[in-house]
Order: sequence, then C-alpha cells, then structure tokens
Amino acid sequence: MQKNAISPTRLENYPEWYQQVIAEADLAEVSPVRGCMVIKPWGYAIWERIQKILDERIKETGHVNAYFPLLIPLSQLEREAKHIEGFAKECAVVTHHRLVSNGKGGLKPDGELEEPYVIRPTSETIIGTMYSKWVQSYRDLPILLNQWANVMRWEMRTRLFLRTSEFLWQEGHTAHATADEAQIETKKILKLYQEFLEGAMAMPVIVGEKTEGERFPGAVNTYCVEAMMQDGKAIQAGTSHFLGQNFAKGYDIQFTDQQGERLYAWTTSWGVSTRLIGGLIMTHSDDNGLVLPPQLAPQQIIILPIYKKEEDKETVLSFCEKLKSQLQQCLWRDEKLRVQVDTRDMAGGEKNWQWIKKGVPIRLEIGPRDIADNAVCLYRRDQDVKARLNKKVSELTEVIPEMLEEIQTGLFARAAAYRRERSVNITSLSEFEHYFSKEDSGFAQCYAIDSPEIEQYLKPLKVSARCIPLAQEGKEGQCIFTGKKTRLQIVFARAY
Amino acid sequence: MQKNAISPTRLENYPEWYQQVIAEADLAEVSPVRGCMVIKPWGYAIWERIQKILDERIKETGHVNAYFPLLIPLSQLEREAKHIEGFAKECAVVTHHRLVSNGKGGLKPDGELEEPYVIRPTSETIIGTMYSKWVQSYRDLPILLNQWANVMRWEMRTRLFLRTSEFLWQEGHTAHATADEAQIETKKILKLYQEFLEGAMAMPVIVGEKTEGERFPGAVNTYCVEAMMQDGKAIQAGTSHFLGQNFAKGYDIQFTDQQGERLYAWTTSWGVSTRLIGGLIMTHSDDNGLVLPPQLAPQQIIILPIYKKEEDKETVLSFCEKLKSQLQQCLWRDEKLRVQVDTRDMAGGEKNWQWIKKGVPIRLEIGPRDIADNAVCLYRRDQDVKARLNKKVSELTEVIPEMLEEIQTGLFARAAAYRRERSVNITSLSEFEHYFSKEDSGFAQCYAIDSPEIEQYLKPLKVSARCIPLAQEGKEGQCIFTGKKTRLQIVFARAY
Repeated sequence: MQKNAISPTRLENYPEWYQQVIAEADLAEVSPVRGCMVIKPWGYAIWERIQKILDERIKETGHVNAYFPLLIPLSQLEREAKHIEGFAKECAVVTHHRLVSNGKGGLKPDGELEEPYVIRPTSETIIGTMYSKWVQSYRDLPILLNQWANVMRWEMRTRLFLRTSEFLWQEGHTAHATADEAQIETKKILKLYQEFLEGAMAMPVIVGEKTEGERFPGAVNTYCVEAMMQDGKAIQAGTSHFLGQNFAKGYDIQFTDQQGERLYAWTTSWGVSTRLIGGLIMTHSDDNGLVLPPQLAPQQIIILPIYKKEEDKETVLSFCEKLKSQLQQCLWRDEKLRVQVDTRDMAGGEKNWQWIKKGVPIRLEIGPRDIADNAVCLYRRDQDVKARLNKKVSELTEVIPEMLEEIQTGLFARAAAYRRERSVNITSLSEFEHYFSKEDSGFAQCYAIDSPEIEQYLKPLKVSARCIPLAQEGKEGQCIFTGKKTRLQIVFARAY
Repeated sequence: MQKNAISPTRLENYPEWYQQVIAEADLAEVSPVRGCMVIKPWGYAIWERIQKILDERIKETGHVNAYFPLLIPLSQLEREAKHIEGFAKECAVVTHHRLVSNGKGGLKPDGELEEPYVIRPTSETIIGTMYSKWVQSYRDLPILLNQWANVMRWEMRTRLFLRTSEFLWQEGHTAHATADEAQIETKKILKLYQEFLEGAMAMPVIVGEKTEGERFPGAVNTYCVEAMMQDGKAIQAGTSHFLGQNFAKGYDIQFTDQQGERLYAWTTSWGVSTRLIGGLIMTHSDDNGLVLPPQLAPQQIIILPIYKKEEDKETVLSFCEKLKSQLQQCLWRDEKLRVQVDTRDMAGGEKNWQWIKKGVPIRLEIGPRDIADNAVCLYRRDQDVKARLNKKVSELTEVIPEMLEEIQTGLFARAAAYRRERSVNITSLSEFEHYFSKEDSGFAQCYAIDSPEIEQYLKPLKVSARCIPLAQEGKEGQCIFTGKKTRLQIVFARAY
C-alpha cells in the first residue's frame, strides 16, 4: 500500500486532512490573535496569483482601484438598518486612542473616543458616504471602483482561510444612474467571477441567486458562484449584490438627471476573498497534499538536481540552471513559465515530497545519467506521484506548455465530473431527508419556493439553500417542502 | 502673465499649494474618519506603480511576501519596552467585539474583550512572536519576509499622504544568525530604497543614519533616505532598522547554532509608505499642478483628439486609437508604454488642463490637419505647457521612449540641482541660527556630535538632525553646538 504524505486521508477525516494539507504545504497558521491567521509565503504567493489575474480582469472591464479608510464611525454604520443588523453581532470596536500605565507594570486603554469606530466588516457604508459627495450630476455616473483590503468580522468558530476574523479580499462598489445598468453590472461581475473560478482556479461553479434568507444584509438581490468540495459540501466562492437604492437612500447618493430631476443612484457591490484559497485546497488536493492548477501555482516547474558524488555537483547544477533559463523564456497563457531550481542541501526524497505536498504541477529530476542522455525525468502532480515520464531536454519547451494546459483543464474536468456524480435531483421531502442523512450527500436540486417557510425543513438537517441557479428549465413542478406549485428549482447542500 | 492652474502658487503659500495640487489632480481627500484619507483612483494608481516596481526589487533580493494579523494583543506589545513607549501615545485600541442597542435608537459597544487589542502601528511585535515559533535551528535562518499592509498611528495633526492616521506601506522583517548578516541586510535595503527613489521616483536622497534621538523605538541603528522638498524642508522617505537582539530577546527568537549552542537571532525591519506620494508631489510639481516621472505615471502618454466638425470625429478617433495601439507596443525601461485616448465629450482646453494637472508626462493633440500631415502636436509636462513640438507620426515610436528617458532623468537632475543650491556647510552656531531664521533655509551640513545635548539648540529653531550621511569626509572638526572635537558631519533641516 502506498504511503501517503497526508495523515489522516480525506476518507478518514476530511476536516483534519484539510488542516494537515495546509500545515504540510506551509500555507498558513493560526496566530495568537483570536481567529486571525498568518498567511505564510507559499499561501500568500497563491493569493498574489489570484490578485494578479483578477485585478487585470477587473480593470479590463472598466473598473479602477481606490482605497477607503479601515475604520467606520458608528453613526455612519447605523444608516442602513438591515445592513447594520447583519454585522452588529460580530464587529471589532475601537473605543480608545492611546495606552497608559495601569500602575501594575502594564498598560491600559486611555483617551476614550467621543464616537467609537468599527473596523470595516465591508465598506458599503464608508464608500456610500464618499459617493454622496462625489455624485452630483448624471455626468458623475457610473462610478466603477474596486478596493483590495483587509476586513474584520468577529467570528466565533474559525478555520484557516474558510472563516477567519480578519481576511483579505477585493470589494467592488459601483453607482449607476439606472436600475438596469446596475443589474447589468451585477451580472457582468458574476460572469467575471465564474470565468475566473472555472478558467484560472479550475473550480466548476453553479451560478445563481441567493434565496431571501441568504441575502447580503441590505441587498435587493445577491448573486453567487457556488462550488462543491470533495466532501460534497458547498462553498460560496464569490458574491455580487444588486443593492437597489437602499444604500443610496441611507447615504444620500443623489444626482440630477438630464431633465433636471433629483434621483437616487443605484448601487452594487461584489467580492471574493482569501476564502478562495480554502476552496482551492478542498477542490483539487489529494492524500499527498496540495494540488495547484498551473495558473495559480507560484512555481509551475520545480527542477531537482540529483547527484551523489561531489564531483558531479557543478555539472548537474549548471545544467539545471541552464534549463531553467530556457524554460523561463517559454510562454503559457500569455505569461512566462515560473520555474525554480531547488539547490538546498538536503536528501532528494525529502525535497521531492516537500514539492509534492506544495502542489507544484511539474517536477523535473536531473542527474548525471540524464545529462549524458540529454534527458530528464518528469513527474506530474495530477498523476500518480511515482509515474515517471522520460523526456528529451530538446522537447521540453514544447511539451511543458502543452502539459500545463492539460493539467489545468484536466483538473477542471475532474472536479466537474466529481460534482456531476455527487449531484441529484430530488422530488420529495422524504427522499430529501434520506439523502441528507447519508455521509455521501452532495448537491440536491429540487423544486422549491423561495420563502422563509422552507427554513424549518432545512435547519434540522443542517442543510441550506445554496442558490437558485440562473439556468432554470422553467417547467412547473411542486415544491418538495410546501407542495405549492412553482417553476423554481433550488440547489441545496451542506456548506462551509 | 501666465495663468497658473494651481492657486495659490508655491511662492504664495506652499502648504496650501500642496493641498490644491492634490485636489486638482484628484489624488486623495480627507474622509469622515479622523485623520484617515481616501486615496482616489489616480493617487492609488501611483501607489500601484510604486508597489509594482518596489515589490519586484524586494523579491529579486531574495525576499518573499506574507501577511500577519492587523491586531496585536496588548500583552505582546508590552514586551519590548522602548518600542511600546514609542507607540503607546498614538494607538487605536479595540476593546469590544459587538454592538448592541443603546436604548435610544442607536448602538453602543458590547462584549468587552478580556484583553484589548491594538491596531498595528508596525508589526515587529506580532511578527517577532511568530518568528520565535518558526526559528529553532540555524537552518531556519535567515527569514526574509515582507508585508504590504495598512497600519495605524493616532496622529493629532494630519496632512494628506504626509501624515495620516491610517497609511499603507510595506514592512520588511528579517531574522539572521549573526549581527554581521543583519547589518548587511539593513544596508542592502537602504541601497535598494536609494536606487528606487533616485531611479524610479527621480528623487535624489541623502543616505545616512539617524541620530540617537531620531531612532526607531527599539532599534540599535536606524538608517534612512532623506529627500528635499521644494520649500527646503526634508522628508524621511524610507527607513531601514538594525534591531540588534532587542526584539529577539523581547520575543524569544532563539536558535541552536552548528555547535549546539542556543543563541538569540539578529533582526531588521524596514519600510516605505504612501508618504512617498507626498514627497513625490513636493519634489516635482509646479504651479500648474502635479508633475510625474514617467516610471510612476499611471498613464505616460495622453492622446487628445481635436475636431470641431462632427464629420471629422470618426477619422480623428480612429487615427488616435491606431496610434495608441502602435505606441502600446513600444517598450521603455522594459515595460510597454501606458497610453490613453481621452474620448470624453468636453471642451478641448478643459481636457488638456485636466491632464496637465494630473502630471501626465506627454500629451499628443491630433486634429484633421495633423492627420493630413501625418503629424501630431506634442507637449511635454516637464516644459512650458504651451511649448509645442511638431512630430511626424512615423518617428513617434522612436522619439517617445527617448523623450520619456529624458524626462525621467531630467526631473532627477533638476531636483538634484535644486538640492545642491539649497544646501550649505555651516561652521558656527550663530551662522546656523541665522540660516534657519530665513525663509529660504534648506539642508545645513555641520560638524556635530551625536548626542541628546544638541537638542536644546535645535528645538527653538524647529530644526532637526535629519541624518548622519554615510559618506563622511572623516576629517576632524569642531561640533558647532558643543565645541567638542568630532569627525562627524550631520545634516540638519526643517522637516515634514
């Protein structure tokens, strides 16, 4: 039996496997600050890849970046009632602005503020306040801004990447002259998220709208992309909100239209966060650790020089460096290949396993005999760790970009097939209850009405409505919970 | 007399001119959050340029990025006595983790924390705590990390970019096995900052060490790069600290060396912030607004289509777009040119002035007659706003990269000449006092001892020791304050 790099395996204990994949790939760890994580270099480099690709696409669609304050005055937060209700229970509140001696050798807060501040849990309120100053005429619209920032929600139960008190994200905030334009924007971003997740992250998603109960506090419509993890649970990977005029009214974002009439603007907001890294891990990784789609891999190719005799060292190392330079000139998906030679002085097997666990798509082993043959041993992370491919050096610049493409699309196909296998259509409540009583439940699509009255059936099963897919058959059926006639099909699942 | 875009001019009122340059270029504005600014798209795009160039260089020198928590538990902050003393007076303190109704229709803080948290004013303490876990053996060293983050210091008197309660920065934190290695790192980064400032920002700097009184709280040596603004005042543009073993002892960063001995590590930290944008503005801008060195300009070339008759519109616009595509293929300093066509439907003069005030290095005006001649009217932001150059379209791909190089190096040369003119050597206290009684004071270099006893002479003049330049003649002289013999020359100035 093969020894796995990660213990326990996915089957043995999925949540613990997840923690171990993170630890072994050295992605992040818990910090002494309640619920906050430290994102370590390999984990942060994945976030930088996400940022780079997404930032380009956000800019290509006409948005620009800006930066708004970390703190929100309490009085400003209160102005959109549902919004504040949604976040009040989990806010970090700043009440003092200095520290003084507590007389016992330590310090205590001092300089109480007239008005407390909240660390932004999201920035609709502070950005709304600024938009009300910036927007006067229809000529000032649309405003299409994005911000890369940290936010904080005082979570009680936290898990690395998936749910942390502080997390990193991008939050887009736009204001428009008409409801129509704002709706188009909301959907445009939803599509951008879908393409990013499926194309760059190799994560298939269901594109849909949240039910009333799962809506963002203060939104009219919340759209989302939902992905399935390897334990059949769902993750909300990104959201795009049509906020109607709720925030425009709360924060007084008014403009004069071409006829001289004063109107409230229509706003949207949308975001994805470091939670994506949690979803990435749980979509592709295996019992040997992290598996990275090539587009997100900080290094796509690792070259491992192998030599036993000190006299071979220089030959092997210089051969590896030369190959690295060659490969770095190759393009794949419009970017130069990311290649590293691991010259550390440690046992070859240990080194090899470190890179397997870090999920690098392609490993090349090169020893004196390979050099004599002008060849390399190539290993693909998406295949068995021992499945060796012998390749001539001369063919690598052609083979490797093709192989990266194969790995990228292969990971997507594998995840899509997995989701298909673990998705069902269910037509009765008893079947629904039976399905979610099993260990291997996944996504269940059912006729159901979008109403708070179905919650009573979901809560005891620890299941939630993930989304109302935008792609609907439109045929009439019967709500499995209430028996009412409906044309809506909703996807249900357990979720992170 | 020429009408200037900025009122008042630099001579009339320098501080107010500074605010107006920012307002007219739409770089940033004050927010409803005490002392915090909103960085608007054009200002943030400059920060993105700074980030991009600096991040590449930080990585080229072997550092990697990571991310540490925003909040620091009070007990952790207290462990380096001088450090906490330096920051206690200006900390944002988080004391509660939720909001509840105050019974008057509003909200109040609730859920008092057992231990308060401070929003990081800098991250030595939280990072030191993590390093103490990560460093066990000499094999774990060096650790070479950098973080891009927001930090907060509760400033009482704030100014956009130069001094704000929240600001953005990068902070490098490294740990080494020997004092020597840590000192080399500190100096390596100092050089990196100098090259970045002089090369990319076109800001000449004096490279030196801070005097005892100006040292970072907890550092053994603080090195800095100091630049001169157009009012003769200094700005500390970046700092690099050799922290000795102070933080290693405070946070227990110990390792076992090759002989099996337990030793404390040696650490460094270093950073530059959004304050650089303030320095950039005050170094190059003129009475017509912002002037950007091409390497930092979000757009380097703006194309202004000029037409009066509607029938010319399509010809002019398509000509401009074609030219844009051509120019975007050109390289300057290894990057593709950043070019934009301004197609907005507004008066040509107003448009032109907007781009002048935004500091775009090159403007191209193109009308029907130019198209007939296959020519453009070219204007350089570093020259008189009306100095027109006629250029053939065919020569632009050659001329423009050369011109950008000329502008970049020209701005540096101009700033360097200005600093030279406004720098003096002073050999007596009375001369020193006379010099700093004048409006047009600048940098004064004098023999002086590095001791707190010279402070009494500086405070009444509102002057500070900016740095002890690393380049010293080494000849003996007499301290102008104490009369003591010394080989040190120190640079003094008023400062931001």
